[in-house]
Amino acid sequence: MSKEITSRSADYSQWYNDLVIKGGLADYSAVRGCMVIKPYGYTLWENMRDALDKMFKDTGHVNAYFPLFVPKSLFEAEEKNAEGFAKECAIVTHYRLKADPNKKGALMVDPEAKLEEELIVRPTSEAIIWNTYKNWIQSYRDLPILINQWANVVRWEMRTRLFLRTAEFLWQEGHTAHATSQEAIAEAEQMLHVYADFVENWMALPVVKGIKSESERFAGAVETYCIEALMQDGKALQAGTSHFLGQNFAKAFDVKFSDSQNKLEYVWATSWGVSTRLIGALVMAHSDDEGLILPPKIAPFQVVIVPIYKGEESKAAIDAKATALMAELKAAGVRVKYDNNDHTRPGWKFAEHEMKGVPVRVALGARDLENNVVELARRDTREKKTVSLDGLGNHIVNLLTEIQQAIFEKALKFRNDNITKVNSWEEFQQVLNDKGGFISAHWDGTAETEEKIKDATKATIRCIPLEGDKEEGVCVFSGKPSKQRVFFAQAY
Amino acid sequence: MSKEITSRSADYSQWYNDLVIKGGLADYSAVRGCMVIKPYGYTLWENMRDALDKMFKDTGHVNAYFPLFVPKSLFEAEEKNAEGFAKECAIVTHYRLKADPNKKGALMVDPEAKLEEELIVRPTSEAIIWNTYKNWIQSYRDLPILINQWANVVRWEMRTRLFLRTAEFLWQEGHTAHATSQEAIAEAEQMLHVYADFVENWMALPVVKGIKSESERFAGAVETYCIEALMQDGKALQAGTSHFLGQNFAKAFDVKFSDSQNKLEYVWATSWGVSTRLIGALVMAHSDDEGLILPPKIAPFQVVIVPIYKGEESKAAIDAKATALMAELKAAGVRVKYDNNDHTRPGWKFAEHEMKGVPVRVALGARDLENNVVELARRDTREKKTVSLDGLGNHIVNLLTEIQQAIFEKALKFRNDNITKVNSWEEFQQVLNDKGGFISAHWDGTAETEEKIKDATKATIRCIPLEGDKEEGVCVFSGKPSKQRVFFAQAY
Repeated sequence: MSKEITSRSADYSQWYNDLVIKGGLADYSAVRGCMVIKPYGYTLWENMRDALDKMFKDTGHVNAYFPLFVPKSLFEAEEKNAEGFAKECAIVTHYRLKADPNKKGALMVDPEAKLEEELIVRPTSEAIIWNTYKNWIQSYRDLPILINQWANVVRWEMRTRLFLRTAEFLWQEGHTAHATSQEAIAEAEQMLHVYADFVENWMALPVVKGIKSESERFAGAVETYCIEALMQDGKALQAGTSHFLGQNFAKAFDVKFSDSQNKLEYVWATSWGVSTRLIGALVMAHSDDEGLILPPKIAPFQVVIVPIYKGEESKAAIDAKATALMAELKAAGVRVKYDNNDHTRPGWKFAEHEMKGVPVRVALGARDLENNVVELARRDTREKKTVSLDGLGNHIVNLLTEIQQAIFEKALKFRNDNITKVNSWEEFQQVLNDKGGFISAHWDGTAETEEKIKDATKATIRCIPLEGDKEEGVCVFSGKPSKQRVFFAQAY
Repeated sequence: MSKEITSRSADYSQWYNDLVIKGGLADYSAVRGCMVIKPYGYTLWENMRDALDKMFKDTGHVNAYFPLFVPKSLFEAEEKNAEGFAKECAIVTHYRLKADPNKKGALMVDPEAKLEEELIVRPTSEAIIWNTYKNWIQSYRDLPILINQWANVVRWEMRTRLFLRTAEFLWQEGHTAHATSQEAIAEAEQMLHVYADFVENWMALPVVKGIKSESERFAGAVETYCIEALMQDGKALQAGTSHFLGQNFAKAFDVKFSDSQNKLEYVWATSWGVSTRLIGALVMAHSDDEGLILPPKIAPFQVVIVPIYKGEESKAAIDAKATALMAELKAAGVRVKYDNNDHTRPGWKFAEHEMKGVPVRVALGARDLENNVVELARRDTREKKTVSLDGLGNHIVNLLTEIQQAIFEKALKFRNDNITKVNSWEEFQQVLNDKGGFISAHWDGTAETEEKIKDATKATIRCIPLEGDKEEGVCVFSGKPSKQRVFFAQAY
């Protein structure tokens, strides 16, 4: 089975698609650019969602749900935001089909059922939400509003890729309202740290925290904070963003509050989101030519037990031992599957579970049982070893922690090895061509230089890092003064 | 605050709207027929969803996610299903907006960005899912497929009501595929029982399980199973449906499997769903003129503690005691809130929590503390009593169970009191006018009679009950022979 996966070296892009499809995460659909998230991929998403949701609630947020549709007049209210999404949105214009008189059994749009005002399928929900907040906010006592929404959104992208860029995707979008600028900025920064915490500690994927240059900012934001991760091919991937929106949406939707001195002020806003795109990042960052490698903390199954039967007699004994081990692991909170179907052979199962990235495989055979041992295989390193059945549950629990850590450390080393400081334009181009990764370089702070570098190399400023030294220097491209190094990379 | 609620006797319909809006469950939105589910309402939905989701998983189902859009050609493939939903669907026809040359700052649909094929915003997902299953099913080994989806759907209803009938709503839709008719029927019946179990044991709302008459069947189903609940105004509400779809969708989408004898057969299907409509049922069934009454098992907060301060000194002591009680209740798995904001008075808080249906209120004052007691108020009966602080946590846990049961018993008594057997057309009309509720009557089994009764009385056959005696008789309307009584009612 694993032979069907294209290798990374042969075709990185095809390798990625193979993993997503053959690993059972997602499938193409009949709708252009929309994917089907298969049960295995959706379970992964549920695990990610549940962990994030808890982090949001622990930081005082609550969930709510706002309409899928945005009337055009609201959509266009915040001009920059509208401009940013107008070119790629799905638009509902009619509300009824009727029988097609020219084609038996077929339906056609009923021209008489045209909406008075078109509805945009939300590409993001600032407009519909701020139009609602207007009714909820009168006084400073109504603030802050700390709401998150789990939802589907649609952006009519022309070039799509499973998980990484799809016309419809699932995400969460936080939309908060505050009495002061400082409080809103603190919220935007807090959520950036929550995202970094989640991506690093659950997805085992190290990130660089930073802010976006003006040209990469979210449409309608005053400041966009982001976390950037590095993929195995040396390209960067934006894993999450948190926006300080200033009073832009409050002004567009006329949302004011009376402060404790009874003075009317516009409300301050943030929004922040991560999406199913994270699954694409996960796949690209950790997996190998045999299949997916999933961090134990979010893997749908953390352990799979494969029985190796020789005849009916050994079957009963193995089943009994497997059942006991399952119970022990489940009691310890481990997600475990017993793969005892009898129409595929153990070798096929091994390959299947490697493909699917199950962190730990336990093989349980008749001879093993006699010797009171099992064969444990860890997916990340593909190491196998024979381990005593005594204390096995505990051993596995510890191993899962070790694997989680090892996957992170490996990705961290890769990431750190692929941050290269360059001090000249020649060096910049050379590193980008030969090595890729993040290029730490001085930039003069102008959109003009940024644009020229992008045109010449396809590399963009991924972020202006929040952490690290702030040494001054000169721009690698223009030679003009620079206040600090920024991270360039080609990106997904 | 409670004075703002219209009473049931004055205007039942307005009473319902008041509860939804003032209880903080939902709000109107700028989009025709779409609502905003507010945090309090959404938390209620999360509690319901989590309980249901666990029941689905415990019966072997997994979640997945399918596209929001259905291409028109797929939508029309299953003719009856298409016909059922064609008249009320949102249709995406374009994928881009552009600047309106006639109006500065405004956007217009770009006529050049017209889709080749229109997309229907899913009103239900049989079509898109069965078009996908086609690629997943080859052999009997691929069956059964037991998938559920949590999603938003859109039905362009002309007359909408918060939760009960909205253009967009949230729901779950199970879509299963089976090798045999028997297995599919067993699945449809199993899910009916799961729904009944959930609605009765979590929502405290008794239901009648039955099957729909042909004219009330889901478009495209061979058999529709349903659970029907009774509201306080004597109208019925369909709380959930489970459909045996036969091979209709398999035939429409050409989904065949080779059985163990290598013979090609069409796949058998079910689908089943419940939606945010259940929240409407919950509100209408249990609440009173003071506000919502929520069953403890799904209430966002089960207990609220209200401190009654007299000066700073008592505040510290009360806070300390409240904090200890919170910890004790949380440890027992109780969802508890300490309402210690200092800008509203206790009386206002009492009314607010009554409005919101918090099952148990604990009032904690300085004098109470001296006497080592608190005042407990239960929302369902509005009884208050003074209870010792010793063992209070345990007392409250038991009280919550008692309240859950009491709410169910009350609704059950009401429901049973409002099932009336009638044996003549006069009696039928009289009971419907004077009393409402379920009318248990003989029906001749024809759509014609059903239609005539509906035209005359607005009462429809809610279901042909699965349980109870199957006595024969004569149709109350036509006098023709009848095999069993069915339940008529006016319905939401």
